[in-house]
Amino acid sequence: MAGSTFGTLFKITTWGESHGKALGVVIDGCPAGLSLCEEDIQQYLDRRKPGTSTITTPRKEDDKVEILSGVFEGRTTGTPISLMVHNTSQKSADYSEIASYYRPGHADYTFDEKYGFRDYRGGGRSSGRETIGRVAAGAIACKLLKELGITVTAYTRSIGPVSADMEHFDRTAILQTITAMPDMQADEAAQAYLAEARANYDSVGGIMECRIEGVPAGIGEPVFDKLDASLAKAIMSIGAVKAVEIGDGCAVSGKLGSQNNDAFRMQNGQVVKATNHSGGILGGISDGDTILVRAHVKPTPSIFSTQDTVSKSGEEIQVQIKGRHDPIIVPRAVVVMECMCALTLLDAMLVNMSARLDSIQQFYKK
Amino acid sequence: MAGSTFGTLFKITTWGESHGKALGVVIDGCPAGLSLCEEDIQQYLDRRKPGTSTITTPRKEDDKVEILSGVFEGRTTGTPISLMVHNTSQKSADYSEIASYYRPGHADYTFDEKYGFRDYRGGGRSSGRETIGRVAAGAIACKLLKELGITVTAYTRSIGPVSADMEHFDRTAILQTITAMPDMQADEAAQAYLAEARANYDSVGGIMECRIEGVPAGIGEPVFDKLDASLAKAIMSIGAVKAVEIGDGCAVSGKLGSQNNDAFRMQNGQVVKATNHSGGILGGISDGDTILVRAHVKPTPSIFSTQDTVSKSGEEIQVQIKGRHDPIIVPRAVVVMECMCALTLLDAMLVNMSARLDSIQQFYKK
Amino acid sequence: MAGSTFGTLFKITTWGESHGKALGVVIDGCPAGLSLCEEDIQQYLDRRKPGTSTITTPRKEDDKVEILSGVFEGRTTGTPISLMVHNTSQKSADYSEIASYYRPGHADYTFDEKYGFRDYRGGGRSSGRETIGRVAAGAIACKLLKELGITVTAYTRSIGPVSADMEHFDRTAILQTITAMPDMQADEAAQAYLAEARANYDSVGGIMECRIEGVPAGIGEPVFDKLDASLAKAIMSIGAVKAVEIGDGCAVSGKLGSQNNDAFRMQNGQVVKATNHSGGILGGISDGDTILVRAHVKPTPSIFSTQDTVSKSGEEIQVQIKGRHDPIIVPRAVVVMECMCALTLLDAMLVNMSARLDSIQQFYKK
Amino acid sequence: MAGSTFGTLFKITTWGESHGKALGVVIDGCPAGLSLCEEDIQQYLDRRKPGTSTITTPRKEDDKVEILSGVFEGRTTGTPISLMVHNTSQKSADYSEIASYYRPGHADYTFDEKYGFRDYRGGGRSSGRETIGRVAAGAIACKLLKELGITVTAYTRSIGPVSADMEHFDRTAILQTITAMPDMQADEAAQAYLAEARANYDSVGGIMECRIEGVPAGIGEPVFDKLDASLAKAIMSIGAVKAVEIGDGCAVSGKLGSQNNDAFRMQNGQVVKATNHSGGILGGISDGDTILVRAHVKPTPSIFSTQDTVSKSGEEIQVQIKGRHDPIIVPRAVVVMECMCALTLLDAMLVNMSARLDSIQQFYKK
Repeated sequence: MAGSTFGTLFKITTWGESHGKALGVVIDGCPAGLSLCEEDIQQYLDRRKPGTSTITTPRKEDDKVEILSGVFEGRTTGTPISLMVHNTSQKSADYSEIASYYRPGHADYTFDEKYGFRDYRGGGRSSGRETIGRVAAGAIACKLLKELGITVTAYTRSIGPVSADMEHFDRTAILQTITAMPDMQADEAAQAYLAEARANYDSVGGIMECRIEGVPAGIGEPVFDKLDASLAKAIMSIGAVKAVEIGDGCAVSGKLGSQNNDAFRMQNGQVVKATNHSGGILGGISDGDTILVRAHVKPTPSIFSTQDTVSKSGEEIQVQIKGRHDPIIVPRAVVVMECMCALTLLDAMLVNMSARLDSIQQFYKK
Repeated sequence: MAGSTFGTLFKITTWGESHGKALGVVIDGCPAGLSLCEEDIQQYLDRRKPGTSTITTPRKEDDKVEILSGVFEGRTTGTPISLMVHNTSQKSADYSEIASYYRPGHADYTFDEKYGFRDYRGGGRSSGRETIGRVAAGAIACKLLKELGITVTAYTRSIGPVSADMEHFDRTAILQTITAMPDMQADEAAQAYLAEARANYDSVGGIMECRIEGVPAGIGEPVFDKLDASLAKAIMSIGAVKAVEIGDGCAVSGKLGSQNNDAFRMQNGQVVKATNHSGGILGGISDGDTILVRAHVKPTPSIFSTQDTVSKSGEEIQVQIKGRHDPIIVPRAVVVMECMCALTLLDAMLVNMSARLDSIQQFYKK
Repeated sequence: MAGSTFGTLFKITTWGESHGKALGVVIDGCPAGLSLCEEDIQQYLDRRKPGTSTITTPRKEDDKVEILSGVFEGRTTGTPISLMVHNTSQKSADYSEIASYYRPGHADYTFDEKYGFRDYRGGGRSSGRETIGRVAAGAIACKLLKELGITVTAYTRSIGPVSADMEHFDRTAILQTITAMPDMQADEAAQAYLAEARANYDSVGGIMECRIEGVPAGIGEPVFDKLDASLAKAIMSIGAVKAVEIGDGCAVSGKLGSQNNDAFRMQNGQVVKATNHSGGILGGISDGDTILVRAHVKPTPSIFSTQDTVSKSGEEIQVQIKGRHDPIIVPRAVVVMECMCALTLLDAMLVNMSARLDSIQQFYKK
Repeated sequence: MAGSTFGTLFKITTWGESHGKALGVVIDGCPAGLSLCEEDIQQYLDRRKPGTSTITTPRKEDDKVEILSGVFEGRTTGTPISLMVHNTSQKSADYSEIASYYRPGHADYTFDEKYGFRDYRGGGRSSGRETIGRVAAGAIACKLLKELGITVTAYTRSIGPVSADMEHFDRTAILQTITAMPDMQADEAAQAYLAEARANYDSVGGIMECRIEGVPAGIGEPVFDKLDASLAKAIMSIGAVKAVEIGDGCAVSGKLGSQNNDAFRMQNGQVVKATNHSGGILGGISDGDTILVRAHVKPTPSIFSTQDTVSKSGEEIQVQIKGRHDPIIVPRAVVVMECMCALTLLDAMLVNMSARLDSIQQFYKK
């Protein structure tokens, strides 16, 4: 599995599985001179932590992060930053049964086919706990982007049929609501919907969205490492995401050119767009407008009703999944999306620094 | 722009711009021993060639491919394959005007911001002609996949409000219809819709879809190089694509877990899925089922009605775009999607070969 | 410092500095199914451990390795393997003085120029302790290569003017002698030489060599990732190495073609070479013969005699370095060389698996 | 053979074989705004062109380069630059015989083992003509480095027993002498030595050296992408190179620390070194001094005396090689070394731009 590294210059490598000793990430290429402490990272990890509300698994994990290298006297040194979170609440016994069959909607079967066997405890590497490394690294990317005047904000756009009202977008609600919705009212309706699904031993899907504000024009590397292409990969790599949209996304396929084009105009001496159907990216390069990304997330595959499946030995069986599972993935995945967007953008910004001879000459003072 | 290389082991690098001398691609890492001639590639290029119907630009280009290296006595040698197509019908004069302003919906502004200036002739590197390299390389990937029993089939799913009827999927229609729809009737309706849009100096969007059949289970590298993540990047990197879906895609966000999970069952001694909501990928790894990818494509940004924009010198102006432009991007992009899917899958299959010690031992006969 | 990752398919990322909390490595892409426990790795770490003889620093470090992920029920799972070694015997006080000036022959000045400041404790990331990650990962590579019938053996070829007599190569001596020489007599002479240098507050250089036996022909990727090129990078990246030779190495520049060419002949139905001037590599690809690599290592830059240098504030000063330092680098670097050779070869062997269509077809059973 | 790409941000991909239609290179990531024309590249290609003197093969090739993309109105656009040289003087007939056996010292056997067959005409991809792509790309790197105040100068240090006298280093002689020696007298002696070897149907080895002047301190990425490690790979990847030295190179293994350390001192307010044993690199990072790299090159393996070898069918035979071959590789390889050094350094300089937060903030004006 040589697929656990992400990025070209700001490069992260995550490791760890649900019920191993620990999980973590190594960030290689973090620029020197960033003020950094464990609390900077912890606040992001706390947003994905389980056990904090009625809609997350009751598994209790502190998920306390430790900085093992790369920071000296409170600042990053430019050398690899190693971050680790110990697993403390693994109950392997809960999972012993699933060793023998393939859970529908999960990666049990595909891991077995690829590797010949699998760490079945809690899904092993395919568990949502894998995202701890992404979030820990992403917290650093977010902090660095803030130093460049850029903010990344992800939130729940909808849960089943309940959507946040974007007319009354409430940034503070994102961290306060259980659903991570930017809308207190929708949060309430969504919770009711979730309670019902849970009562039916079922789970629900949802949509998450991310806004990146303050991005300068010029970021992204055509033709394969376009900014939207890199974001699509980053977001689609989050477990359970099945679709990614940029700007107007799917809606563009039903539009006319005259409706979809964003006219340019001048504002305070700057070129701006009158609308933002493009979602801040034109030709794979940031256009200076807010970048808008959306992701569709499938319902939690672990549901408690009876399901048809097969055993490892090839018998058709019926199973009822036990254990501790969220009835919806979205609220805890929102911070993962935020982090993946930050990691992607930051890396692209570093790569972009060598796009022009005059910048290089200025950098090297020639 | 160090973003013109794609792939890890089957690695392609494309080059060339709309009105340069030529366009092409270098394929580095094509396995030795594949029978290959120019005609194998030409038939794919012919599918994206302009000037073949009323709905494509009247620009006439032969787009004849030349194999410059890497093939000896009719077989690939394992060394880099260089493919080139000369530009023959550039009319730079048509484009001289657009040097001075930024076309809405195009990459003119973002290229200028990134690089300080741009090759404005026909969009330069941001032109659709950039995809010639992708298609030429993809033709080889498709041929190689066929040797492994895998077929990749892309087609137009919808044009504006007109959708192909998938109940009567007609594979032969894809190459016969002007719209690349797998449905003769829908093709007719779509053409009428396009004629109307064109009469209004407008353009339309659409949806394209790709089915990959015969893929073994086990392909894809969690956690960042999951097969769906890599496909998402590959497809989103095609100009004008604004959303990518895998399997049920966007629909999953409105579903319950009990609706979305695919039950496993046995068929002829093989594990199969009763349904394919997953689109052939679970946990980022192929599950042995048909892989299904969908892309939403925006309307051609070059429309002939008057538009508001700004000049390079910062004046708000109104422009009317001239030149030769397709009223819809989808039909010619279908083969590009097919090729990007093939390139992504083939590369992932080569990477997957080292996933298990026993396979490596068998390969090296130990 | 995005330079801490090595390899394409068997990819390692090392982290940690001399006086941080810990050092470690993440191996991403280790094939599934390899039996692995901590003792497999520990025996390699013990070979580079300080404090084991009179010619190494008296700093006592246990360097006990912990496997944090990627191994389940005694076998590698194909997911990232995270290995960690805690620092236990850091004495930061010893190094506080060197914060203020640049030690000759060390990286203090260059780190300051690059990053703006540095973790000066024990050299930070530029310390020899950085190689812990390399050795831990290399131990796994060595074990995997053994499963493929390949052995990697590094040793000290010479220390100052004292060379091992290769006519009486004694493999067992390598692990038994303090100098890691394959020759008990040379070991004795070398120790005497070292004692004298140390008495003069000085340090000495030396040569290390590595033999790789059992490598099949065909490994290496022309034209940039040739096996010898990759080995050269791997070995030159070890601190203090200033020259790398393959086969006859430097000697070839004084030879005639008729002396340097290795004639081919048949042996037991196999093509073999009558001599091995090439060092087992022709055209950047292994030729089936023993691979021979040699590295020239500079004397330990930390010497206890007075030296001229400058302070951070730009004054010319004289300094006497304190602390705990080996009078020679080679004996402890030998295992590092062995590990870097193993990592390079193994990665190249995995990449080579996709060189031919027929192998791929066989792998995927088509 | 996915090994034909070199570099991270300034990335080149070479293609082509000795007797194919053409050879070339794609440069992906060349910064925008560099003034560039074909003559800039041609002058470097002319330095490696065959047929220009009595010591090179009489094969006549014009090796005229064509810029196919990436340059607009005389300046690089930041998009891929495709360069091509047509083969015009291939005489495939000369080589038909070698299809049936393995030439000693050549890559015939290893290519067959790796790929199952080979393009035997003139060595195919393993021919020295492969370096055309390296030189064409390197010419651009050299030009760009000049804009940053950096000069790269390679030359022949010795041919067999004849060495250039470095006390009287004569830069202009490099381009004027047939041997590329920086010393007119040594050139004469070397020519006499070469004439003798040639009369004996033999070939000779030699040493080439490269000086890089004007490099700022701080370039190189520990721990694996150290500047010396990257240079070692780049140089060792040139066909026939068997050893690479940095600074004092092999000599360090016989030195004492007190002899090998370079004292720091101040000069015009700058930190400089009193000596340059390090060859301009400390801890893998440039130290501001002249970078010095040396390469040992084996004698041309194609010699005209009778040699023992085996046929493809496994018979022991004797052969006499025909065709057109240089009696020494070094003089024409000197420009290849210069180019590989330039490519390596430039790429490292681009990567280095993101090492510090303050530089990034300044770049993005925050």
